[in-house]
Amino acid sequence: MTTESRPEHVRRHAERAATDRASLHRILDAQCVGTLATTWDGEPWLVPMLYARVGERIVVHGSTGAGALGAIARGAPAAFSVMALDAIVVAPTLFASSANYRSAVVHGTAEVLRGEQAREAIDAISDAILPGRSGEVRTHTRKELAGTTVLALSIDRFTVKVRQGPPSEPDPEDRGAWAGTVPLRTAAANPVPAPWVNDGTPVPASVRALAGRAHPIDSADEVSLP
Amino acid sequence: MTTESRPEHVRRHAERAATDRASLHRILDAQCVGTLATTWDGEPWLVPMLYARVGERIVVHGSTGAGALGAIARGAPAAFSVMALDAIVVAPTLFASSANYRSAVVHGTAEVLRGEQAREAIDAISDAILPGRSGEVRTHTRKELAGTTVLALSIDRFTVKVRQGPPSEPDPEDRGAWAGTVPLRTAAANPVPAPWVNDGTPVPASVRALAGRAHPIDSADEVSLP
Repeated sequence: MTTESRPEHVRRHAERAATDRASLHRILDAQCVGTLATTWDGEPWLVPMLYARVGERIVVHGSTGAGALGAIARGAPAAFSVMALDAIVVAPTLFASSANYRSAVVHGTAEVLRGEQAREAIDAISDAILPGRSGEVRTHTRKELAGTTVLALSIDRFTVKVRQGPPSEPDPEDRGAWAGTVPLRTAAANPVPAPWVNDGTPVPASVRALAGRAHPIDSADEVSLP
Repeated sequence: MTTESRPEHVRRHAERAATDRASLHRILDAQCVGTLATTWDGEPWLVPMLYARVGERIVVHGSTGAGALGAIARGAPAAFSVMALDAIVVAPTLFASSANYRSAVVHGTAEVLRGEQAREAIDAISDAILPGRSGEVRTHTRKELAGTTVLALSIDRFTVKVRQGPPSEPDPEDRGAWAGTVPLRTAAANPVPAPWVNDGTPVPASVRALAGRAHPIDSADEVSLP
């Protein structure tokens, strides 16, 4: 996400393109929603999807035959993008203002998963969001599996971009104005029971664990909610 | 984002495809980051971007010549996707589990903006994130404008999808288990001044206003942070 045109020596300081798989995995594993894209009749198609990383593949699932997912299942090329917006970066000029973020774009080959592989992929997506969830409930029926398309996208090529830290230092005449960052974070609220759930029904451990996961800002000490 | 294969009558209840511009505008105006996509050499390309809606166009800007943005500036087709993840929907089975979200995908024609139009677009992006910011700082220099590509994507065709509410009601034998939603929200932390900023420098009104904007959940009464 380039939002400014700072000189290269400054950009190098704050923005970093990582080429190692460990950085990619950290970014993918910290989020649960990404954007799946394909090319269809020469045009780009996009759909936001829940996902999980399983080894060197990204797995997603959706209704059989649905739009972009169906096209990819039939062999159209695929790419997947994930982005976490960590802060708004406020500089003394609009042009030097920016955002702190962690982003990844993956290109690879998609494969339709079936049977046990499909089952494991759906479990992985659930567990990525609600840790341990697949161990709390029954497994999928054949009928359920038949109604969904499960895709695995191999991570063949990827780009990772990260921006962190304060705005770049301005010219001396602009140093009197306030500048800095506004950290953003995703926070989970208290679980809300469905209308038919009896009072006192215990909240599953996986649901309680989600609250602990929904804090992408590393140092909780730095921030306090307004 | 389809994550399950519920019967049509149930899906109709919780998931809704809107066709009116007002719904589209509400979704676009509540977010500040989307995913821009194009088709390049027959393959999909994606890049997360800050954006603003200006009337019936989406405006973005980035470094001149950069990847997907450069390709779109040279005439490649474009699409833009925005998604807000509002809650994790926990059902008694993995298959009925889902997410509450508001999403929009826009297809249209991209136009490179120059001069005053480019200036206004960059102001709009800043003001969409930090309300009133363009009135607090100097305007862009010619040199700054020359270093950026500003694009406007007309909203020619769009799809809006929204899922809200609790999970669909399960079969009677599954009603003893906990089910419900875990609301998520984006929260802004206290602004962090850059290292060179003097103590006591007032935080601009636009930065204070961002904190008020960073709450996509409509009913704050329903939720409390853990």
